[in-house]
Formats: sequence, structure tokens, C-alpha cells
Amino acid sequence: MKEIKKKFGENMKFHRQEQHLSQEELADRCSLHRTYISSVERGERNISLENIIIISRALDITPTELLRGIE
Amino acid sequence: MKEIKKKFGENMKFHRQEQHLSQEELADRCSLHRTYISSVERGERNISLENIIIISRALDITPTELLRGIE
Repeated sequence: MKEIKKKFGENMKFHRQEQHLSQEELADRCSLHRTYISSVERGERNISLENIIIISRALDITPTELLRGIE
Repeated sequence: MKEIKKKFGENMKFHRQEQHLSQEELADRCSLHRTYISSVERGERNISLENIIIISRALDITPTELLRGIE
């Protein structure tokens, strides 16, 4: 299960950095705390469906993009 | 946010019924409780990433199938 959270975090970080956003800026867009964003990116969080959608909307990508490589 | 959980539950129920599985049978495959499966299908649960993957694996579908129509 650990690899699922790790892969999600990698996908999220990839898209955030691709858009030249800091964790702080993404956190602001999501109204989530920067430390939460950071812990999700490190694969330490079993993120909820609602937060997956909040983050995908903030990055203006589909939720599928965040689940790429997770089967 | 409610509609996200609702749509997820509808997707999950659709795929379960398409495979002629009862909630009990799906719960057994997932090692999750039947009442949990039932509450997710009713859109009452903000399901976690790990459980999304457990359920998609149990239904032998991609997680994307469970997120169809959720943007």
C-alpha cells in the first residue's frame, strides 16, 4: 500500500512543479495547509477522495492524472 | 463535495452489479465490512486513496473507472 501513496505524491509533485508552483502556492489554492501538501507529496498520507479532487481542481488537471501508474 | 462522493458510489455500484456481485461478496474480496461498502455506494463516505485502490483491484477495473464523471 505504501507504493500507492508514494506514486500519488510523485504525480502530484510532478504536476505542481510543471506549473512552477510552490507547495505554499498550491496549499493556498486548495485552502489546505502547506505541511499537509508536503506530507502527501512525500507519500505519507492516505489522502481522501475529496482532497484528491480539491488538489486536481487546483492544478487544473483530471483526477486520473494524479492516479497515473497506480493500479 | 457531496456530489463527488455520490458519483463515486454510483460508479462503484454500477461496476459491482455489472459483475453480479453482492455487497457482501465485494466486501469479502476487499476484506472490508459490508456496511462500509454500502455506505460508500450511498455516497456517505469520503473514501481514502488506499480503499479506492483496494476496491478497484477487487472489481478488476482501473481506479479511473471509479472516478468517471468526477472532475
